[in-house]
Amino acid sequence: MRDQKVKVITSKNVEDNIDNGTEGSYVENVNIGMFGFGYVGRAVFSLIQNQKGYLSKKIRRNLCVKTIVVKDVKKKRPIVDGLENVKISDNPSDIINDESIDIVIELIGGIEPAYQLVMEALSKGKYVVTANKDLIANRGRELFKAAEENNVDILFEGSVGGGIPIIGPLKSSLASNKISKIVGIINGTTNYILTRMEKEGLAFEDALRKAQELGYAEKANPSSDIEGDDAACKLAILASISFNSRIEYKDVYREGITRITIDDIENAREMGYRIKLIAIGSEEDGKISVRVHPALIPEDHILSSIDGANNAVYVYGDYVGEVMSYGRGAGDRPTASSVVGDIIKIARNFDRKRKGMIYGCTCFETKELKSIDETVSRFYVLMDVTDRPGVLAKIAKVFGDNNVSIKSMVQKQTRHEGVARIVFITHDVVNKNMYSSIEQISRLDVVDRVLNIIRVEDLGK
Amino acid sequence: MRDQKVKVITSKNVEDNIDNGTEGSYVENVNIGMFGFGYVGRAVFSLIQNQKGYLSKKIRRNLCVKTIVVKDVKKKRPIVDGLENVKISDNPSDIINDESIDIVIELIGGIEPAYQLVMEALSKGKYVVTANKDLIANRGRELFKAAEENNVDILFEGSVGGGIPIIGPLKSSLASNKISKIVGIINGTTNYILTRMEKEGLAFEDALRKAQELGYAEKANPSSDIEGDDAACKLAILASISFNSRIEYKDVYREGITRITIDDIENAREMGYRIKLIAIGSEEDGKISVRVHPALIPEDHILSSIDGANNAVYVYGDYVGEVMSYGRGAGDRPTASSVVGDIIKIARNFDRKRKGMIYGCTCFETKELKSIDETVSRFYVLMDVTDRPGVLAKIAKVFGDNNVSIKSMVQKQTRHEGVARIVFITHDVVNKNMYSSIEQISRLDVVDRVLNIIRVEDLGK
Repeated sequence: MRDQKVKVITSKNVEDNIDNGTEGSYVENVNIGMFGFGYVGRAVFSLIQNQKGYLSKKIRRNLCVKTIVVKDVKKKRPIVDGLENVKISDNPSDIINDESIDIVIELIGGIEPAYQLVMEALSKGKYVVTANKDLIANRGRELFKAAEENNVDILFEGSVGGGIPIIGPLKSSLASNKISKIVGIINGTTNYILTRMEKEGLAFEDALRKAQELGYAEKANPSSDIEGDDAACKLAILASISFNSRIEYKDVYREGITRITIDDIENAREMGYRIKLIAIGSEEDGKISVRVHPALIPEDHILSSIDGANNAVYVYGDYVGEVMSYGRGAGDRPTASSVVGDIIKIARNFDRKRKGMIYGCTCFETKELKSIDETVSRFYVLMDVTDRPGVLAKIAKVFGDNNVSIKSMVQKQTRHEGVARIVFITHDVVNKNMYSSIEQISRLDVVDRVLNIIRVEDLGK
Repeated sequence: MRDQKVKVITSKNVEDNIDNGTEGSYVENVNIGMFGFGYVGRAVFSLIQNQKGYLSKKIRRNLCVKTIVVKDVKKKRPIVDGLENVKISDNPSDIINDESIDIVIELIGGIEPAYQLVMEALSKGKYVVTANKDLIANRGRELFKAAEENNVDILFEGSVGGGIPIIGPLKSSLASNKISKIVGIINGTTNYILTRMEKEGLAFEDALRKAQELGYAEKANPSSDIEGDDAACKLAILASISFNSRIEYKDVYREGITRITIDDIENAREMGYRIKLIAIGSEEDGKISVRVHPALIPEDHILSSIDGANNAVYVYGDYVGEVMSYGRGAGDRPTASSVVGDIIKIARNFDRKRKGMIYGCTCFETKELKSIDETVSRFYVLMDVTDRPGVLAKIAKVFGDNNVSIKSMVQKQTRHEGVARIVFITHDVVNKNMYSSIEQISRLDVVDRVLNIIRVEDLGK
């Protein structure tokens, strides 16, 4: 209640006001314009409609969706209660140039035209709420600059982890901490696929098909999920906030899960690990490492218990220690929960005459990035070799020559006579040394093939 | 940045400013007074000192601890960097009547004199931050009224779950949801005791002693933890926010863990459950049920994996679905993380001339409480009976007469000949029917004794 006027609105008369159906007489409206009206858009609209009285009491303002701009006004749409009072238009100017609209929700997705529309909204002094990870991870710098210049803000809780509160907590409750590391399972599709592979022994392709049937993975082009691009966008967003330095999508190293086999999952399990697609951001010696890749993680770590389409983000702060947020990582209703949560953050103390930042941009430093070559990890290596004495010595020599130190080696059963399948786990290795050792090992005549190399992350501080 | 003046402070010049050691020339100070200087107080002070430059860049204000009021100024204290610039006093008026102090941190604990001091601070238009669960759970109503009348706010993230962000998320990122249920493991001491009992086969008394040795449980009087009082205060706070209706400590039903034996833990384990002290708040048909008690929870539910002194809060919202926050539930540094997080929420947009609420009180409804007698649960019942035909029929008849329906019955080994130990699991039962059946069963001549009854919670919606 930064506006003194609002002091007259006590809980009591807000309640009377709304319960009597006379909302608006004491309580100010906050007007909303929405770009895009797909699944998430409809869920956001329904939430605001269904919970109108409840939200008015909570934030002491009425949320009012005034205009929705869509590509094609003539397209058949499901009937949504309350939509009859909303202007549906295909002209962005109906939102951008409507001075009564205070908050713009962008739910188009992708970079263009979303970027252009959001920039225009900011330039008109409108607050922006978006769930668009591509937009923030690729154009964050320009957007926050525009928001600040126009004395407003852009909020984006829904862009990472669906309904899980993570951006808000990083920007406020946890903001007192210096964060050294953040580890997320932030792509539900790949986590669903890996869970089904593990629990039911499905091959990757079959688990992917199940995910597509259930709508977790895109049918036409599932690559954004399974190649780690989706998680990379989300990590760029989380790392920018955690390390106070702008990280973009292109900065994030990424490897997907297409090479993971049931064999790898079983080998990991036997050694006390599970395989997850993880997104890790860490700061070491002032340099930032950001990478998305499958990894073996200890089965007794709480991140190992994140199954199916769920997401979790694990944060290491210097005062708070280790904290984690967990929940459904996608879906129209969870995302709507975050989008309307952001609207609440803006609307609660809204005063048209005194705008300003909510959290503001916190990328006040410019930190160097660590290349994946410099990064240090442990590795799981699976290879088929000729089953005869002296082979291990040859392989071990190459590892040794490349400064790769081996922690354990186990020989597995194979179906082919004369071939031995071997699992190595390394100690910490500089990644480029690992790559060169594998390249050399692949060329040894005693090595049939290197089937896979996967990082091992113990998730310590 | 609700204050237009602040527009001149760009990230760039804040940075110059602070890096050159000339902080304060552009950036406004937010002055803090602190009541109490124990473990948490020192951690809060150190955090603000150690992260001064970092926090200034983040919130574009300087946090300045001006005065600390303690009971005894002559008491020997550990040397803390930066304390030489702070006024240490035993006179509360040095904070209350200092008009330059904007935020008061209350870290005395307990209800009095904390309540009196906080009320005075609010009446002077100062914001208050506290980690005092007793204060909020017993005097919340009066405090929020006073805060609102004085157009300020009182924040208390540190009062529940140490450093875990849960109150902030409930009040903002998740605020769009109607919450039907909240389940927490919010007492680290009892969770530590139950974990050691389970993992090492320790008896309750031995595990308690370990907890006391490690400082997790109070030596003189551990009852607040082990009897569920601490968790009840925290649940009162979480439930008030979740259900928008004031719940006080006295409203919460509570049972501690002193009756839990290794036998119970093993029996639970065999049936796929673990025993945890849980705090449950739920809303059914407009009535609120709030209760703290041990319970068998499914071992494959993520709350089962919360071990040792960790805490977790699981929330069921109508849009977000199920989300959980997890972390270290106590300790000076995690609590300091939350306290300074709250200071950041106030300071970020602070404008001395335009105060107002941050979240405000959200208890705008008055909902009825459901008594424990009316509550419906499943139960685990362990009893020793005479080992001869016909006994089960007698017991089953009493259960049946009281509308208690049995889901499963297993006979266990006992060391005494002629005595059979039996575990029953019931279907859903109205609690008062359960109590009356147990009372009647205890009086049967074929029943040696009822060893324990513990609720079973499947943690579904």
